[in-house]
Amino acid sequence: MSAFKPHRWSRKDLVAIRDLSAAEIVQVLDTAAAFKEVGERTVKKVPSLRGKTMVNLFIEPSTRTRNSFELAAKRLSADVINIAASASSFTKGETLKDTALTLQALSADIIVVRHKAAGAPHFLASRLRASVINAGDGAHEHPTQALLDAFTIREKKQRIKGLKVTILGDILYSRVARSNIALLTALGAEVTLSGPSTLVPHQFEQFGCRVTWDIEEAIGDADVISLLRIQHERQHRTAFPSIGEYTAMFGLNKDRLALTKPDAIIMHPGPINRGVEIDSEIADSDRAVILDQVTNGLAVRMAVLFLCGGGS
Amino acid sequence: MSAFKPHRWSRKDLVAIRDLSAAEIVQVLDTAAAFKEVGERTVKKVPSLRGKTMVNLFIEPSTRTRNSFELAAKRLSADVINIAASASSFTKGETLKDTALTLQALSADIIVVRHKAAGAPHFLASRLRASVINAGDGAHEHPTQALLDAFTIREKKQRIKGLKVTILGDILYSRVARSNIALLTALGAEVTLSGPSTLVPHQFEQFGCRVTWDIEEAIGDADVISLLRIQHERQHRTAFPSIGEYTAMFGLNKDRLALTKPDAIIMHPGPINRGVEIDSEIADSDRAVILDQVTNGLAVRMAVLFLCGGGS
Amino acid sequence: MSAFKPHRWSRKDLVAIRDLSAAEIVQVLDTAAAFKEVGERTVKKVPSLRGKTMVNLFIEPSTRTRNSFELAAKRLSADVINIAASASSFTKGETLKDTALTLQALSADIIVVRHKAAGAPHFLASRLRASVINAGDGAHEHPTQALLDAFTIREKKQRIKGLKVTILGDILYSRVARSNIALLTALGAEVTLSGPSTLVPHQFEQFGCRVTWDIEEAIGDADVISLLRIQHERQHRTAFPSIGEYTAMFGLNKDRLALTKPDAIIMHPGPINRGVEIDSEIADSDRAVILDQVTNGLAVRMAVLFLCGGGS
Repeated sequence: MSAFKPHRWSRKDLVAIRDLSAAEIVQVLDTAAAFKEVGERTVKKVPSLRGKTMVNLFIEPSTRTRNSFELAAKRLSADVINIAASASSFTKGETLKDTALTLQALSADIIVVRHKAAGAPHFLASRLRASVINAGDGAHEHPTQALLDAFTIREKKQRIKGLKVTILGDILYSRVARSNIALLTALGAEVTLSGPSTLVPHQFEQFGCRVTWDIEEAIGDADVISLLRIQHERQHRTAFPSIGEYTAMFGLNKDRLALTKPDAIIMHPGPINRGVEIDSEIADSDRAVILDQVTNGLAVRMAVLFLCGGGS
Repeated sequence: MSAFKPHRWSRKDLVAIRDLSAAEIVQVLDTAAAFKEVGERTVKKVPSLRGKTMVNLFIEPSTRTRNSFELAAKRLSADVINIAASASSFTKGETLKDTALTLQALSADIIVVRHKAAGAPHFLASRLRASVINAGDGAHEHPTQALLDAFTIREKKQRIKGLKVTILGDILYSRVARSNIALLTALGAEVTLSGPSTLVPHQFEQFGCRVTWDIEEAIGDADVISLLRIQHERQHRTAFPSIGEYTAMFGLNKDRLALTKPDAIIMHPGPINRGVEIDSEIADSDRAVILDQVTNGLAVRMAVLFLCGGGS
Repeated sequence: MSAFKPHRWSRKDLVAIRDLSAAEIVQVLDTAAAFKEVGERTVKKVPSLRGKTMVNLFIEPSTRTRNSFELAAKRLSADVINIAASASSFTKGETLKDTALTLQALSADIIVVRHKAAGAPHFLASRLRASVINAGDGAHEHPTQALLDAFTIREKKQRIKGLKVTILGDILYSRVARSNIALLTALGAEVTLSGPSTLVPHQFEQFGCRVTWDIEEAIGDADVISLLRIQHERQHRTAFPSIGEYTAMFGLNKDRLALTKPDAIIMHPGPINRGVEIDSEIADSDRAVILDQVTNGLAVRMAVLFLCGGGS
């Protein structure tokens, strides 16, 4: 299965993992593997998207994902324009559709969009000739995060099918969790969800996951433990009593790590809260693959831009 | 009249349409036509300004125009630096002249400046070796907007001379209107100005325009109807009673459209206020060339940067 | 002493002038001289850092230095990512180390860091594979400013050894002064420090400088007079009674200039406060080399990025 066969790829957009077949997911991962090799060369640039323009339309702020997309595009020799949430002449008094049509008229070939409203990328994808890549929409999906997580799992474990993957934390409000569940179940992993009962409702079992509020059960047989970031700023007042209590009950510390399989890997989408969802020394240990995820994110985003953007 | 003969161009700056001869205006439009073809290629880049640096010095914010200039420069392979209004170390306690001299010393070849003070680009142009391009100064001029409007008219109507062009809205405070009036009259169009009497004073007749506050008279025989953006934030309290009243009296709706010539085109510099100065369905109809204006703006700005920046 | 022999350079970082030998300082200056010639070509770009990524991590804002590094990197064909102080997802709740490790994982080859905490660049340099360049840390060092100042002195005076250099202003809180003192004394200049006694303590004599609060003595025999910027916003309430009094006692005006050697050059790191630390007409005169410093800053930063970044 050679990576550089974009003729098999027929999508102009990446809106949701749920839209993709297992074969398409694998194609992205294989293409990313080829691009990861590019990242290890001295000159890390390829001319695949030379003369094309990618717009980072981040209505909701995110330095990390935005930078990753920007670097991925530059590696492919595309031109990049960043539109920040605060760039109000695009957003004030103008509809999202008009903003996007204008960007397309300004010759944007690819629009990477992050928006607080679930569905915004789909709305744009169905109305534009340009490629639309979802960089996170509300609590809906964050498909490139799931793809880079899967890439990292496959790289470390040589497979995804049959692996036991536990996702731990705020599942209810997490687009990362939703995209990961969709991808991992599509590729045959067994997914367990855990965290405070207020944030991990039993309804998620309908997606083919196991739900347990018992963290020892959740992590005991896992091959992969994927932690979600606790959002200090929003949820702790309502969903659980305090950050300290979350850490005590669900934080990954040395005692809990001792209960895991010795080759289980620890993942986190970042930025990590040291001492909250993960102990500082575990984050720095060989068990954590958090920085691999960042590196792989670049390769995965290059693959997505290449495939959807019609790279050559 | 071949487009790529920049040896005939002797200006380092573009400060105002009023400075240009009709021949120079036509040269910009012809050069832009050649660059528009570049924008239709797969690889939309030419090396004309490779190794040159363009600075976007936007003391007054504007995402749309700034992006257009940035993309135009990147298409010409120039390096681009964006200086925002909020970048205070350039502006706080430092004069505009010192800021610009510093940018020139930092090897800026072209400085694109937007400033709330009319005359700021002229001030810089006369003091710098670098090319200075006016991206809008107070209520004075916005020359590239007029050039892209003219380009769009010529593209759609195959000529400008003898056409009837109606500009509708806040003429008094509009640099877009001033640049358009200068350009269109220089190329022999017949310009009509219309809008609320508080915003369209009779004094504009001295520029060779017809002034009428009767919208039916203004649009009835027009080949081109150019709407100006209503600035929600500033003028409605003083210049007219309410947005709703403006829309009722001067908004372009279906009934008014029925009074226009069937081949009259509708222009707008954007961003549009749907339902205020233009009905949503007219904005989306074939009669509107608003997105063509955006696309043409890129070609026109490439031409201006190429000619003034000494491209090869 | 040919400039392009980076095999003699063994540092991945530039954290402080104090770390450098005199030979290393001279190597940077010689390399910068070669790059300055590049800046005088029509195509001012070289492919030395093509495919490498430089991150501007400015936790403390600075448009001027940031732009200089950005342009230097682009001249060397590197890709550039700007992370502003306000880009909070990198800084809020994340340690500086995690931010930097993430940037490295995102394939940053060079991290240019400005930080209000003295020691932040050293902290990163010792923990990252990436090159770390100090763009100013607290009141500690600003090594590229000292290098560009030395480059300018050498260019104008053909030597540094034996020259009398007077630094005038707020020495106590100035990282520019510290880096300049280290560099100039290392290369054999005789440094005099002057300014209000509250800002120029006698303790600086331990660095091999003369300290005098008598401005006439300080400037009378100087070959180079280097003014520091008065920080309106912070120090005047505590360290001296008023801006006006500073100007009266230490500002460089026509009367004081008459006391200096006729070939003494006037330097300032910018942005200048006209009428505060320097009279406007002196700033615009041939005696001032302030804009040369800006131009040379670009060449010096290209040299530093090239040497530390392993350019070829």
